[in-house]
Amino acid sequence: MRAVRYYGQKDIRVEDIPEPQAGPGEVLINVGWCGICGTDLHEYLEGPIFVPAPGHPHPISGEDAPVTLGHEFSGTVAALGEDVTDLEVGQKVVVEPYILPDDVDPKEDGPYNLHPDMNFIGLAGRGGGLSEKVAVQRRWVHPVAEHVELDEAALIEPLSVAHHAFAAADATEGDVALIGGQGPIGVLTAAVCKAYGLTVIVSEPSEIRRNRALDAGVADHAINPAEQDLQEEIRKITNGKGVDVAFECTSVNVVLDQLIEALKLQGTLVIESIWSKKADFDIHSVVMKELTVKGIIGYAHDHEQTIRLVNEGKIDLKPFITGKIGLDEVVSKGFDTLINHNETAVKILVSPEL
Amino acid sequence: MRAVRYYGQKDIRVEDIPEPQAGPGEVLINVGWCGICGTDLHEYLEGPIFVPAPGHPHPISGEDAPVTLGHEFSGTVAALGEDVTDLEVGQKVVVEPYILPDDVDPKEDGPYNLHPDMNFIGLAGRGGGLSEKVAVQRRWVHPVAEHVELDEAALIEPLSVAHHAFAAADATEGDVALIGGQGPIGVLTAAVCKAYGLTVIVSEPSEIRRNRALDAGVADHAINPAEQDLQEEIRKITNGKGVDVAFECTSVNVVLDQLIEALKLQGTLVIESIWSKKADFDIHSVVMKELTVKGIIGYAHDHEQTIRLVNEGKIDLKPFITGKIGLDEVVSKGFDTLINHNETAVKILVSPEL
Repeated sequence: MRAVRYYGQKDIRVEDIPEPQAGPGEVLINVGWCGICGTDLHEYLEGPIFVPAPGHPHPISGEDAPVTLGHEFSGTVAALGEDVTDLEVGQKVVVEPYILPDDVDPKEDGPYNLHPDMNFIGLAGRGGGLSEKVAVQRRWVHPVAEHVELDEAALIEPLSVAHHAFAAADATEGDVALIGGQGPIGVLTAAVCKAYGLTVIVSEPSEIRRNRALDAGVADHAINPAEQDLQEEIRKITNGKGVDVAFECTSVNVVLDQLIEALKLQGTLVIESIWSKKADFDIHSVVMKELTVKGIIGYAHDHEQTIRLVNEGKIDLKPFITGKIGLDEVVSKGFDTLINHNETAVKILVSPEL
Repeated sequence: MRAVRYYGQKDIRVEDIPEPQAGPGEVLINVGWCGICGTDLHEYLEGPIFVPAPGHPHPISGEDAPVTLGHEFSGTVAALGEDVTDLEVGQKVVVEPYILPDDVDPKEDGPYNLHPDMNFIGLAGRGGGLSEKVAVQRRWVHPVAEHVELDEAALIEPLSVAHHAFAAADATEGDVALIGGQGPIGVLTAAVCKAYGLTVIVSEPSEIRRNRALDAGVADHAINPAEQDLQEEIRKITNGKGVDVAFECTSVNVVLDQLIEALKLQGTLVIESIWSKKADFDIHSVVMKELTVKGIIGYAHDHEQTIRLVNEGKIDLKPFITGKIGLDEVVSKGFDTLINHNETAVKILVSPEL
């Protein structure tokens, strides 16, 4: 079968590799669609980061580069391995793409996303969604409703990150959320907040991104912080109180400052972005306003609720699919768009059938 | 009566002023003991800060300098104003020394400590504990048990700050707490953590302060971070897991870094100190470990539980009384010790009868 294989920095090849089989306790999946993630792009431009470098196999998967890429994917069940009796061939599924020790039980265990050896299917071995087929352990396979389209279902993985951030914020219906940045994770965070009945304000300098959030109906207010007085707009919208929760999705220090200033007394700030350096942090305001600041990474116990939101039509993922390409076009069209036309793209999906 | 009056920077005078009366809804208190707070010292050295400068009266008290100092005090009821029927003359009391609008009800309202006009009795008017008598609105007067000594009771105010920090940490019996710094607030935070059944580790370079925490029985482990490998000691004590909660009581950046590193996955850091500049903040670790960081200031709804701990003997405050002086000695002995012999002092108490 064909698969997109990562060999090293700027060395990605589409190759024919043997088809995987469903071993005991595994599910063989015919890939429907697979999203390209910022992480894939970082591996291409600056990696290997998550990918185990040649000669340094991942302690759980035992694999090193080359590996198949792609961790945001949907598909249908192609075959069931021994002992898998609660799924059916042809059923629509998505994957929570963790590589974790066999004794980790995502139904029982705590924050398995923080396990020291945690890595991802599609980055550190065990196949990937940028191929025709992938065999996945049953515990990481989540069924989706038959009426959900497979292209939308491929966005459930990044949507789970947004759900994890929302859960950390401990927000409730009627709260006001401010989201700093409307890249893929920012706009999906807006979608989750909106689905749970929050008033959503987004702050984003790109007009294309602001309009996308408004047009998709996931933002009630879209503010351009480069041209408008963000704090004055927040005061108007919240009657001077400030926002209940804020989500940092940019790793830009000025955005961090703006969110802290915009929060109400005892409000909560969730950091969803990866920071490569220390922040210049307004700790005085955190103290004087008694703020709560929480970091989140990945997801754990989020897929079930995330899938429910999609199954029930609470979130329409169609507006966030901004491109569809084939396996051969991952670099030429996928990465190129994400690098050179960044603000036009949210999620570019790849199909092995295109 | 005699009172310690703040006129301005380095201008504190002991004067004879008219005795206050218990107006309607007020309680007249014979001051037993009043602690000197770091805030008083800052007013003396760098003020006015909380004290309203002459010509700029506080919006609620209507007073400006000179004002009577002292906000950490205990005493006995001298007289009850009209409508106060639930206290008795002679009863032991402490004061939650807030100046807040009349419609703020500490039993019903939310975080009244964060009210924009909040200030303190003993800093912004309405008398103070560094005098013979003070009249206080009933809502801020809390009875203490008859068997509690008035000198210990004077420490209930700073102990309430520690209680407020503990409550923010959301810790439970059996958790391991790390406290950065063993100044007055740090050691009282240790005392509250210990009273609630936590294992308490303190990190403090001063030997005097480490020994005080150990001798008072509020620390299980006292680490000198200048000479020992703090992280290695934490790993030993916690079997490699890290501490459940940490309390920052120094406003020193390296301590902030150490606490973040020492915390377990999904641990909680409470910031109790006042930072005059931005922090160089390890936000990457906050994200990758999914930490919670909370700021706290003052107290709200804490006096009842704090007094219960003292009434029930769960906290012995005697070890933290490191000096007893008279009103005339506030500057010569009180401030001087706190400035020049800082690590020897926790709480210096002042009596109008010495």
